[in-house]
Amino acid sequence: MSSPLLITGFVRRAGEFFGDREVVEYRAGTEVHRCTHREHHARVVRLAGALVRLGVRPGDRVATLAWNHHRHLELYSAVPLAGGVLHTVNLRLEPGEITYIVEHAEDRVVFVDRSLLPLLEQVRARRPDLLVVVTDGGGGEPGVLDHEDLVAAGPDLDAPPAVDEDDLAALCYTSGTTGLPKGVGYSHRALYLHTFAACLADGHAISERDTVLHVVPMFHANAWGIPFAALMSGARQVLPGPHPTPADIARVIEAERVTYVGMVPTVAVDLARHAKATGADLSSLRALVLGGSTPSLELIRTLECDLGVPVYQGWGMTEISPMGTFARPPARTDGDPAARHAYVRTQGRLLPGLEWRLVDDDLRDVPHDGVHRGELLMRGPWVATRYFRDEHPESFHEGWLRTGDIATIDPEGCLEIVDRSKDLIKSGGEWISSVELEQALLAHPAVREAAVVAVPHERWQERPVAMVVLDDGAPAGPAELLDHLRERVPGWWLPERVLVVPELPRTSVGKIDKKRLRATVPVDRPGPPL
Amino acid sequence: MSSPLLITGFVRRAGEFFGDREVVEYRAGTEVHRCTHREHHARVVRLAGALVRLGVRPGDRVATLAWNHHRHLELYSAVPLAGGVLHTVNLRLEPGEITYIVEHAEDRVVFVDRSLLPLLEQVRARRPDLLVVVTDGGGGEPGVLDHEDLVAAGPDLDAPPAVDEDDLAALCYTSGTTGLPKGVGYSHRALYLHTFAACLADGHAISERDTVLHVVPMFHANAWGIPFAALMSGARQVLPGPHPTPADIARVIEAERVTYVGMVPTVAVDLARHAKATGADLSSLRALVLGGSTPSLELIRTLECDLGVPVYQGWGMTEISPMGTFARPPARTDGDPAARHAYVRTQGRLLPGLEWRLVDDDLRDVPHDGVHRGELLMRGPWVATRYFRDEHPESFHEGWLRTGDIATIDPEGCLEIVDRSKDLIKSGGEWISSVELEQALLAHPAVREAAVVAVPHERWQERPVAMVVLDDGAPAGPAELLDHLRERVPGWWLPERVLVVPELPRTSVGKIDKKRLRATVPVDRPGPPL
Repeated sequence: MSSPLLITGFVRRAGEFFGDREVVEYRAGTEVHRCTHREHHARVVRLAGALVRLGVRPGDRVATLAWNHHRHLELYSAVPLAGGVLHTVNLRLEPGEITYIVEHAEDRVVFVDRSLLPLLEQVRARRPDLLVVVTDGGGGEPGVLDHEDLVAAGPDLDAPPAVDEDDLAALCYTSGTTGLPKGVGYSHRALYLHTFAACLADGHAISERDTVLHVVPMFHANAWGIPFAALMSGARQVLPGPHPTPADIARVIEAERVTYVGMVPTVAVDLARHAKATGADLSSLRALVLGGSTPSLELIRTLECDLGVPVYQGWGMTEISPMGTFARPPARTDGDPAARHAYVRTQGRLLPGLEWRLVDDDLRDVPHDGVHRGELLMRGPWVATRYFRDEHPESFHEGWLRTGDIATIDPEGCLEIVDRSKDLIKSGGEWISSVELEQALLAHPAVREAAVVAVPHERWQERPVAMVVLDDGAPAGPAELLDHLRERVPGWWLPERVLVVPELPRTSVGKIDKKRLRATVPVDRPGPPL
Repeated sequence: MSSPLLITGFVRRAGEFFGDREVVEYRAGTEVHRCTHREHHARVVRLAGALVRLGVRPGDRVATLAWNHHRHLELYSAVPLAGGVLHTVNLRLEPGEITYIVEHAEDRVVFVDRSLLPLLEQVRARRPDLLVVVTDGGGGEPGVLDHEDLVAAGPDLDAPPAVDEDDLAALCYTSGTTGLPKGVGYSHRALYLHTFAACLADGHAISERDTVLHVVPMFHANAWGIPFAALMSGARQVLPGPHPTPADIARVIEAERVTYVGMVPTVAVDLARHAKATGADLSSLRALVLGGSTPSLELIRTLECDLGVPVYQGWGMTEISPMGTFARPPARTDGDPAARHAYVRTQGRLLPGLEWRLVDDDLRDVPHDGVHRGELLMRGPWVATRYFRDEHPESFHEGWLRTGDIATIDPEGCLEIVDRSKDLIKSGGEWISSVELEQALLAHPAVREAAVVAVPHERWQERPVAMVVLDDGAPAGPAELLDHLRERVPGWWLPERVLVVPELPRTSVGKIDKKRLRATVPVDRPGPPL
């Protein structure tokens, strides 16, 4: 019983069994591509052959700098099939960061959307040997190849290069809010196991009956691994194209009767607002999975009660391939929407196959009693134990990944992320959770988004300051919001100031950028805590 | 990302998260034991400690000779946790076979139900060092230990012995219809992966919400691996005790609102008859999974349409840990019961992670077109590549397991087992499928069971002979059954004779024993084929 665990086995499986399924692509809400998986797979096999002919050898990195479209999906299969390492580069990064990443990874080839070519100018000047393939043709650019030419000319890859289950199949760099971006390599074995986990009945439960819409960017942690799960299970796959709007997403869900979609809360907030305003029909969804940051109860309630969409939450990170937990409400919450929503607002239970710990500042274990807080450590066959070509000993402890998340775990194994360790606010020797303050602000009907950061304080070391984005035309002011908070959090947690702002800065993966917020918050009037 | 894949990780997981779940045991339809998983797990940990204290070292075999009860379930976790190999011995074997198996496996300890102690007399005489533990107490027997004493005295096993993912966690001997029994060793890795496969949304889909009834004997291929799946997912587990009758099974399903159960068709036929006769309520079942032999369409239809029980089929064998395929009807069969039932009568699709081939007598591949027949070969991380301490090169081919099953595979990846290779009937140079003839006979409303075997024939080499068991008081005779077959199979397939018999002999795992049938069938009147 010694067969290797290879993600390419699922590529072959889909090629063998799921020829009649569809792969569909939209752009700006309009269908631009529809083919059977049989056709898709034939293109994948030729593309893999073309990569080998281009000189890609086992272990070579092949980068993508692309939106969610069918050619990007082809690369998800073709690169590992050719023995290469699929290196998805975040297209929201600055050219300088992209240059660093492509040079650090020593990418041999990069597949790029034509509109994103300017992002590569700098690195192409430094790496003249870098092969560049434009995904969406259009001809003309000197020194670049065309994806369609490769598929047309590529010989079928009859015998995939031999790889070992511990060989890398994919690579992704973290967004690096501090320091240089760090690469996380995914072995065939890790992706194989992660794919099984994504298809568990108690996990995302991706199945043959699903129509999956890939809203999570394919440059972000393998789009949560869902493309591989869809491949393994034979689900239909739908791609929304470049930067879809909420209206685009709603239109695709309606047109394709999408059953499964994952997205960050920010996107879900906009989608829910759109659907409520227009009456868009999201009822085909059997699961909308939120991840990336903690959703508000209000968002969960709106999606479930107003729009009839079952909501779940997954938690993970680039270093966990990326999924670590899943919040599927237990039977005791049936018939009790409030209990169900409260459960979905937690990060849920550890996926089978993984292990976790909570530790204090001295790395001593703290109880899993739902009360004690500690930094979450993770370990398992799809959890990183090192970074790609870099030493970062501060990120690991005796084989465990230090997630940097402060959390509680209750006796049933339910995780609640309280804060990022670097976002916690230390006031007078006690900790204040920025996440809990934000959740309390979001419970106010007029608040669309909220962010809380620490500002230095002479007496209390740090004090919280809140910034909120209000719904259009909502009349709520800082005083009302402070009153609202007073009923929900301890008095000494009340923010020093509540600032109403038109929008919040975002990181390249769409999270609120607290680093930039901290740099912009006015600190001219530090008053005493209340 | 190099953590080992250990089945004991799921034991720890269940101990950590699922303390409030129940483990329940019945005997003859009456509840005799009910505890929380917290209590169950505490007993498991002490039992593992007791095993280590008894001298069980990593890799040592610990045998069980027991029915399905909660102490047997404890051993499923405790033996691997102690670093040992759980060796489940088939209690339906003869004492001589049991002696062979226990000596071949070099078991150090055997846990035995008191009622089965006589089966061990022979081997205990030959192996005075064999430690014997009686599972169900009652005292008095000299030289035997008591399971409860071990649990009571066992120290908690705080630090499980270090094991590698390729180390064996379990061992099972095939029933050996020809030759000596052969042992199949299951590594931690194989069981870990098999457990994931059992919980896939498109597989058995065992989940936290399930109440699982273990009807499949726990001495038979790890009870299809379902105890491990229940452990991983946190399902409630219910054990029916020794030789439950159909009435016992129905009573437990009703009392515990069982949602998942697996069984061989023979048991399901009796259960369905009982439920129809008594009005027993089986509606809590979300899945009744048939396996072990091909069910009749009539059985599937009765369960689904008359009793409201969704039916699936799994196929596998001891050498595949045991599950290889699962028949979950695709969306195209929705609203079309006949299409759904026809699909469930097939063995369904290959589980993800495995590979298969069909080959002819010269081991050349034949097409997967739903028409061509060949011997099924299997390969994968939970498929055996050798037997335990025995060479059987005839069972393997270049790393593939030769299943001995003759089958077709259609372009959607749907498997149909046509026959065991040794049960095919060669008549005038053409093959006749005993399975298809049996299925055709079972389609007659009066036929409860049917078996077809080959008898030697002077001119045609072999000819089929059928034996049938009729429903009580059914008037059908051989002539009527031949007329019935004439409309369903080619003329030259018609059995030489149709014999009505009161019952059919069974193997130790409950399959019809064709070896014994062939020995008993009268061959005095070989007439010409029709």
